Amino acid sequence: MSHDPTSDQEPVNSSRRQFLNQTVALAGAAGAAGVTLGLAGCKKEEPAAGATAGAAAPVSATSAAAAAKEEMLHPHPGELDTYYGLWSGGHTGDMRILGFPSGRELHRIPCFVPDVLVGWGITNESKEVMGTKADGTLKYTVADTHHVHATYKDGNYDGRYAFINDKINSRVARIRLDYFICDKITELPNVQGFHGIFPDKRDAVNPDINYSTRLFAGGEFHQPMPNDGHGLDDVAAYRVLFSCLDIESMEVRWQALIDGNCDLVATSFDGKLAASNQYNVENGAVFAEMMSAERDACIFFNIARIEEAVKAGKFTTIGDSKVPVVDGTRASNTDPKTALTAYVSVPKNPHGVNASPDGKYFICAGKLSPTATVIQLDKVLAWFDGSLPNIDDAIVAEVEIGLGPLHTAFDGRGNAYTTLFLDSQIVKWNVDAAIRFHGGDNTAKYVVDRLDVHYQPGHINATHSETMKADGQWLAVGCKFSKDRYLPVGPLHAENEQIVDISGEKMRLVSEHPVRPEPHDFVIMRREIISTRQTYNMDEFPLAVKSFGDSGITRDGKKVTVRLASQAPTFSMTEFRVKQGDEVTIILTNIDTIEDLTHGFAIHRYNINFIVNPQETKSVTFVADKPGVYWAYCTHFCHALHLEMRLRMIVEPA
Amino acid sequence: MSHDPTSDQEPVNSSRRQFLNQTVALAGAAGAAGVTLGLAGCKKEEPAAGATAGAAAPVSATSAAAAAKEEMLHPHPGELDTYYGLWSGGHTGDMRILGFPSGRELHRIPCFVPDVLVGWGITNESKEVMGTKADGTLKYTVADTHHVHATYKDGNYDGRYAFINDKINSRVARIRLDYFICDKITELPNVQGFHGIFPDKRDAVNPDINYSTRLFAGGEFHQPMPNDGHGLDDVAAYRVLFSCLDIESMEVRWQALIDGNCDLVATSFDGKLAASNQYNVENGAVFAEMMSAERDACIFFNIARIEEAVKAGKFTTIGDSKVPVVDGTRASNTDPKTALTAYVSVPKNPHGVNASPDGKYFICAGKLSPTATVIQLDKVLAWFDGSLPNIDDAIVAEVEIGLGPLHTAFDGRGNAYTTLFLDSQIVKWNVDAAIRFHGGDNTAKYVVDRLDVHYQPGHINATHSETMKADGQWLAVGCKFSKDRYLPVGPLHAENEQIVDISGEKMRLVSEHPVRPEPHDFVIMRREIISTRQTYNMDEFPLAVKSFGDSGITRDGKKVTVRLASQAPTFSMTEFRVKQGDEVTIILTNIDTIEDLTHGFAIHRYNINFIVNPQETKSVTFVADKPGVYWAYCTHFCHALHLEMRLRMIVEPA
Repeated sequence: MSHDPTSDQEPVNSSRRQFLNQTVALAGAAGAAGVTLGLAGCKKEEPAAGATAGAAAPVSATSAAAAAKEEMLHPHPGELDTYYGLWSGGHTGDMRILGFPSGRELHRIPCFVPDVLVGWGITNESKEVMGTKADGTLKYTVADTHHVHATYKDGNYDGRYAFINDKINSRVARIRLDYFICDKITELPNVQGFHGIFPDKRDAVNPDINYSTRLFAGGEFHQPMPNDGHGLDDVAAYRVLFSCLDIESMEVRWQALIDGNCDLVATSFDGKLAASNQYNVENGAVFAEMMSAERDACIFFNIARIEEAVKAGKFTTIGDSKVPVVDGTRASNTDPKTALTAYVSVPKNPHGVNASPDGKYFICAGKLSPTATVIQLDKVLAWFDGSLPNIDDAIVAEVEIGLGPLHTAFDGRGNAYTTLFLDSQIVKWNVDAAIRFHGGDNTAKYVVDRLDVHYQPGHINATHSETMKADGQWLAVGCKFSKDRYLPVGPLHAENEQIVDISGEKMRLVSEHPVRPEPHDFVIMRREIISTRQTYNMDEFPLAVKSFGDSGITRDGKKVTVRLASQAPTFSMTEFRVKQGDEVTIILTNIDTIEDLTHGFAIHRYNINFIVNPQETKSVTFVADKPGVYWAYCTHFCHALHLEMRLRMIVEPA
Repeated sequence: MSHDPTSDQEPVNSSRRQFLNQTVALAGAAGAAGVTLGLAGCKKEEPAAGATAGAAAPVSATSAAAAAKEEMLHPHPGELDTYYGLWSGGHTGDMRILGFPSGRELHRIPCFVPDVLVGWGITNESKEVMGTKADGTLKYTVADTHHVHATYKDGNYDGRYAFINDKINSRVARIRLDYFICDKITELPNVQGFHGIFPDKRDAVNPDINYSTRLFAGGEFHQPMPNDGHGLDDVAAYRVLFSCLDIESMEVRWQALIDGNCDLVATSFDGKLAASNQYNVENGAVFAEMMSAERDACIFFNIARIEEAVKAGKFTTIGDSKVPVVDGTRASNTDPKTALTAYVSVPKNPHGVNASPDGKYFICAGKLSPTATVIQLDKVLAWFDGSLPNIDDAIVAEVEIGLGPLHTAFDGRGNAYTTLFLDSQIVKWNVDAAIRFHGGDNTAKYVVDRLDVHYQPGHINATHSETMKADGQWLAVGCKFSKDRYLPVGPLHAENEQIVDISGEKMRLVSEHPVRPEPHDFVIMRREIISTRQTYNMDEFPLAVKSFGDSGITRDGKKVTVRLASQAPTFSMTEFRVKQGDEVTIILTNIDTIEDLTHGFAIHRYNINFIVNPQETKSVTFVADKPGVYWAYCTHFCHALHLEMRLRMIVEPA
């Protein structure tokens, strides 16, 4: 199984090198200056002054556009990306921020899992966000994030918040997109292994609210309700909850009891519908049962009706939870006129469901079926209004696209791009043509293009794909296996994120990046959408130590509070003294005001490390159980005298 | 403080775009085919068949070399890098593995800090490596890694092991370079805040051992010996220990009690000397004291003499530690004929010390002094032999190079490259010329080139820099501040790793990558050096569950053992049943044999997540304290039916 990297020393597909040699040769025929200029340019130096006359020669629009796109993939040192990418960290439990299309990782935002760089899960403030047990330790330290979505306004991203889910412990986290930090985490009651999330895009009732106010979360694993030890073997009675959160309070507004296991979630641009693709409508507990039915479902939620039902008191609660739960099971929702939910049938064990940017369709990917199912939303609404007799008549296309369809992205020009897990391909197909073909027009060629990717693609997304501003420029695809694409690093392989230029008729694979498993889903938005702040406002921190003069140590019985400030290259105190057994709280404010001037704070053998960004305040609390001299030092390089930036905690023996 | 990214929408220094336009224009003069070919190539498509005749035209060697270098920076999809980079994670506590010179991050190896992806700090096997308290919880969960070094053979890297230090808790970890995993961690006794590490390059006594067997670790913060609560205020008696570990057992062989705070460590190619640059020879406890002396030191250790002294019983021990401690303090080592250590004076608060690849010199960077000090090693040995009266006569050059010198790399052609923190520059200087200048030859121009970097560079290293095979191709520099180089992501900025082509007379900044703070040090070696294994050998795991038939559940009182196997897309059991209060141990073997086919295992609300790579076995132990149905599922995408890969843990109420 060992890999011999030397065998790849001379890559076969060295088309770029050939291009350079050939271009030089051709340019050489036009004059020696061309040779020098050409290579200097590709070496990214400034072009020689004497050769700039060439720039005045006519250049086709296509050529200039291609050159500009190439430049965006490999920005010169100092050039900025055009897009932000917000990426799920998978079972690293964080959110990754990329510059796009360069694919450069700019940041990882800790959410559900402790992070020793930031001090996430170490400081008192982060523990409060993450949630603790009665003894003050963290309730959870593992997570498995899958999906990232961001708030909308007027059908496009608005740069307020992003959200990310934790499948293991049924949590959802909110990210502030000004500071790029997680500020709220909610654990969903009576939900196990929840998977898809999506915010609404406008209000279901009030047309003035043309922005996100709700977040939907599809429960995946079925369980006894509540899961308290009763009904362990009554598998037929296991159920799943679909949840709706308020994005400002991050509290759960309502839940719906449903059949089947929810996979991904989609929402309509008119705010009226949310949906989730479902596998295991059989409610099976073992593998064979989960796959026994030939068709599963895409479940639609009528948001306005559900919220009317809650208002009218037509709900129950489950166990200790106070959240209103409406009945969205199939058996209770057969009458379209009163139904809260509608189950549209889709082929066997589907996976992703995605909303087309024209607002007309949800597209379900077949997974075990080689098909995509196109559901027309106004027909779903017609069923709820009683004017469409059969809910499955909302299906306007169900066409073969390839093996193992999982997720779909859009270019805003009527085309869908679906990952084919088994074929290791992306298929580009035209939605209108698929509808015509399904309608009987055998001449309709709906498959436009196919592209091999490497290997086994899962999630896919395009720039502004699920917004009304889908710009059809770039597509990213998360490939689950990288196999031989990178230098071997032992048994755990990176996954492979590939970037595809979709601005033309044919897709072009233009670059790829290794990524720590496993990214799952992501969204990509133009940089103008997001407006960030690089220093904190000290007044936002009630504990702030506003100056060196404001620092000091106070005692209340065995509780000692140490108030510290940092300013490169010193802390405000050179030492502090406590007694063995004291409960010590250290409050540290970074009073440096310069952007990027972050300090760290670690204490030897006391298992403490955290950073303070400019104007930020954080605190930690611990028991001084070991006597001796313990140096606390700055861990974040801040100044030429950074190594000298330290102080002594002196713990006197009890 | 907010950043307006739109202002950078049209980069000014778009030399590459200009190049493309100009080249196209020039190529166009040679024929229309050239236009098409040129742009298609830069778009990375295969060149058109009809245009390949151009490749036969003559190409200069320089041009071809430049094109090849460009290609290495931005490999085509599927092309491999030429070098491995082993990078410190800083206060993320792990080791990063990069493909180089592309800078792509291929892997992060958890060492000192839990990692929820791998299950590091969660599985029983990883807890044993990391170290636990009496109650079974991890002793430490934070770390601050600084330096990465790798084993040598015949003066070059040999691909056996790498090492990385944790400054907060005085630990050193060993990485196996076949599996790219951490397999041993040692906590150094009576050491606080240790910083530099370096393996020896051959044995000090036995010439047959021309490979690494020892690892040296320089203690940084001074403390009472032992640090048990006595002598808290007797700062003048605080001391530091320099440690030597055996790289096979990872046990500490000996320590030396010394004056001053050790910064970086270097070792000689002949195996006879180790050294550490020292600030705070004043042994000051506060900032002003640490900077009071005009000169500090580079301390040299005579390895053979120290080991003779240990063998002869000339050592003490400190506190509970059994490690022999020799006396290396300045006062006890004034007689060269018996000295174990030598303190060479270097200007105020120096930082890095680096061994030149010709084996002749150690170079100390001045930090607070704008100088580099060149120490000739055979003169240090002459002092130990009694033939050099004054140890400072081993200094053969002390020359001004710029403000804030920190670390030095080498190209194997006699040049040194030193980072200038305050000047935000790299200075390339010639060592022989510096020696001539220091010797009085005012015509000797030792500064060869300067290059601006962005911003405030710390560590620097070049391909094979500190080996006898320094190849002078590429240099990487870790810049501590990125400021405006990337899209803003709130207050915590990425740091900036820049890559420099050093193959020519002038340095060329060719690319840059954002990196999560903070990388500190790194080494870069050719890919042929490292030979990895992508699947485990099942026989290496005594607990292995070798087949689905081998799985099952056994009980011993309240202790339950669940033996599980995984093979895509199922686990070997569909459920298992325990009683509330049971201590459950789950052993999981991944019996899949296919490279890259990793499975995960998470249990809802039980705070468990880990992966098993092909043929690997891991185990976890926990108390089943919550009754109910808890799904365990695969977290690592493995198969089209990955979502269906799960089983029920049924916890019956007590």
